[in-house]
Amino acid sequence: MPATTPEVKAALETIFAGDSEIYRERGFQRRIGYGTRPALLVIDMANAWTRPDYPFTCDNMEEIIPANRALLAAAREKRIPVVFTSTAYRNPTGPHPDTGLWHLKIPTEILSEGSEATAIDDRLAPEPGEQVILKKRASAFHGTWLAGYLRAQRVDTVIVTGVTMAGCVRHSVEDAIADGFRPIVVREAVGDRVPGAVEWNLFDIDAKFGDVEPLENVLSYLNNLPALAND
Amino acid sequence: MPATTPEVKAALETIFAGDSEIYRERGFQRRIGYGTRPALLVIDMANAWTRPDYPFTCDNMEEIIPANRALLAAAREKRIPVVFTSTAYRNPTGPHPDTGLWHLKIPTEILSEGSEATAIDDRLAPEPGEQVILKKRASAFHGTWLAGYLRAQRVDTVIVTGVTMAGCVRHSVEDAIADGFRPIVVREAVGDRVPGAVEWNLFDIDAKFGDVEPLENVLSYLNNLPALAND
Amino acid sequence: MPATTPEVKAALETIFAGDSEIYRERGFQRRIGYGTRPALLVIDMANAWTRPDYPFTCDNMEEIIPANRALLAAAREKRIPVVFTSTAYRNPTGPHPDTGLWHLKIPTEILSEGSEATAIDDRLAPEPGEQVILKKRASAFHGTWLAGYLRAQRVDTVIVTGVTMAGCVRHSVEDAIADGFRPIVVREAVGDRVPGAVEWNLFDIDAKFGDVEPLENVLSYLNNLPALAND
Amino acid sequence: MPATTPEVKAALETIFAGDSEIYRERGFQRRIGYGTRPALLVIDMANAWTRPDYPFTCDNMEEIIPANRALLAAAREKRIPVVFTSTAYRNPTGPHPDTGLWHLKIPTEILSEGSEATAIDDRLAPEPGEQVILKKRASAFHGTWLAGYLRAQRVDTVIVTGVTMAGCVRHSVEDAIADGFRPIVVREAVGDRVPGAVEWNLFDIDAKFGDVEPLENVLSYLNNLPALAND
Repeated sequence: MPATTPEVKAALETIFAGDSEIYRERGFQRRIGYGTRPALLVIDMANAWTRPDYPFTCDNMEEIIPANRALLAAAREKRIPVVFTSTAYRNPTGPHPDTGLWHLKIPTEILSEGSEATAIDDRLAPEPGEQVILKKRASAFHGTWLAGYLRAQRVDTVIVTGVTMAGCVRHSVEDAIADGFRPIVVREAVGDRVPGAVEWNLFDIDAKFGDVEPLENVLSYLNNLPALAND
Repeated sequence: MPATTPEVKAALETIFAGDSEIYRERGFQRRIGYGTRPALLVIDMANAWTRPDYPFTCDNMEEIIPANRALLAAAREKRIPVVFTSTAYRNPTGPHPDTGLWHLKIPTEILSEGSEATAIDDRLAPEPGEQVILKKRASAFHGTWLAGYLRAQRVDTVIVTGVTMAGCVRHSVEDAIADGFRPIVVREAVGDRVPGAVEWNLFDIDAKFGDVEPLENVLSYLNNLPALAND
Repeated sequence: MPATTPEVKAALETIFAGDSEIYRERGFQRRIGYGTRPALLVIDMANAWTRPDYPFTCDNMEEIIPANRALLAAAREKRIPVVFTSTAYRNPTGPHPDTGLWHLKIPTEILSEGSEATAIDDRLAPEPGEQVILKKRASAFHGTWLAGYLRAQRVDTVIVTGVTMAGCVRHSVEDAIADGFRPIVVREAVGDRVPGAVEWNLFDIDAKFGDVEPLENVLSYLNNLPALAND
Repeated sequence: MPATTPEVKAALETIFAGDSEIYRERGFQRRIGYGTRPALLVIDMANAWTRPDYPFTCDNMEEIIPANRALLAAAREKRIPVVFTSTAYRNPTGPHPDTGLWHLKIPTEILSEGSEATAIDDRLAPEPGEQVILKKRASAFHGTWLAGYLRAQRVDTVIVTGVTMAGCVRHSVEDAIADGFRPIVVREAVGDRVPGAVEWNLFDIDAKFGDVEPLENVLSYLNNLPALAND
């Protein structure tokens, strides 16, 4: 099943064309560009999102998984920092739950720490030394040590992939630029579970928060970087 | 000029109907509900957004301004905390600008601290004792003292209004729930500058981050609250 | 071995007496007081700090452990939120380490995630449903989801225990008040590894950031609270 | 009046000598070192702290002011980012005050935004384009946009000066390293209002959070830097 039907896509393209005219005329949709020290941030590519039959299951994994594998290979080749996130709770259904208030909106009850659901998909298995952040909220930055970590590594650019565009990816990108990093979102490497959500959120992000780039450009950027020292 | 044409609205409604089916079947779109200690958060209702002829000018002020006035009156009646934000920079075009990286995406160059552009619209003038936060990024919470302030006031619910839905309002709502507050977004009191942006972002928020409520409900909630002591 | 010799204690008491005169005359050393919804925050009572022969080993555990046990029993009786922290790293000695810059100051190399060193001391074993935050920095709040979590539980007061006073406890208390919570530090339940550090840091905190209280008072406060519902 | 009498100083030196032995033997008190892109952070050098007869008045301004002037001159010569802070409130004594909970510990009631008390001392007057952050809490980072700003400028090192060592300077330094910046505290450029507070807090910081350096070294570091471009 495609994430978004041709009809939905066409309707959205028409809207975006009109909106883009307004944005461009007013000085939005500028390019933030690539910096010189990127990190790769892979958001919530855990089984509950990447495999069938979970409430969180997303579409289009046949494209998204290979795109993420290609990015991981390029990032590892240049030894840039790689950070995975998953969303996982110690007591999602108990008293004083670490879900905070989020269980009042979405089905966090299935996201137990240590479960198969919250483990990173093994097609994208983290290598030793790569970071895995078990976050509690949508953003990879909010309530985590990510921003301080990336700054300690002198990172200036965050290549963002994963799911979902209407949730964790979008909030992470908004936080990334607010935290002083250039967000680059890889179009083929992000997904969602409802038609239109990928397209609309990429459109908003590209207008205001970060650059949406095709996989080919991002791979070419990474391949042309000098390898980082292991510091 | 309406923010969103009937054609755009109709196309989006069709998409939302399909998406809502998926969301509901999967356990999203739950109600977060109202708490017992609200604050009113009025985002970026400054002249650059509420008056004509700025790059940031938004639509539909003839509805949004009265809705905000009604909410302010109700909030003041009950003495709940009221917080305004504006986005303003000390040196938006100088060296090491406080725009951070945001001038690389949007026209921050016109948002000088102390300018008419960044002053709160006087139809919504803050009263003495109400807070005005001059933020540098999209979210009213990110890089500000808002979360700590609201916690010190024992606030549990944030009534959110203002502009823009695709930018500052959305990011603020995502942060609000992550910071432990129930976000209630008032449909008639929020806006944007491009067709469809209000509708899509309200849809995403209502699915995952906070409740989108009609003005009437929110006024009724406020009117039924006991007045807060001046503590 | 006592944490602080009588000579050191006497020298410090003389200094504190003089300093307190200045503080009181100027309006510092006020009482923040207890609120109505506390949480118990037990900082870094993991084996590397509570057991002998680690670089991080602290003194006075014969008093600190029983004090913490008494507080845990009282907190559990009233079902208030209990949060433990430990400081632990996924790759403390590898490339791009999650120690950030901290290994450049202190011996983080022994604090591997999953090691005996970083496990909570089993004399204070967390019960199911209690939170355990593996932090990367000194503060229990900085770079963690703690503040958002406590606010979601409508907590207004944080009872703070653990180690070290010159490091993680102090930074956590400073953050707690900044984040809008009343910090209460329990004198008999905190420690350090160098003479004078407990005394000096409690003195600074009591002057400016939170109330330093004897165990007896805190137990009496907890015992007089109504039990929280399991919400 | 000297900040700390020779007797106090001698008692503290004896304690520090013993404590340093423990720290060194255990692998603390390491050097974090200087990076390549510093910023200068001047904390709360506003009249309420630098001039006589305020509750916040600090000692030793005859040394601290010239040290800060020398650092400002060196920083401006190399066009590195300069950030001043003051602590100031919009309604320090009104309802729902922006003091949060801090008025329950210290005399925030005299720190009104726009007052002479909270203005930066004109012997250290900010130049156009330099940032002035009016913070509400102790840390220059907590509840402010400072970390995101410094990252956007690719800063890796924060030269810290100002007052007070037991309050705002200490909390800022703890946050700086947590946020991924190398803190360098300039011994002659920091102060406090009670005897011993400068010495003890510098001792704790140097053991765990940042390097305490003499003015001469810091000036020499700055003078040997290449000038930054105005980007």
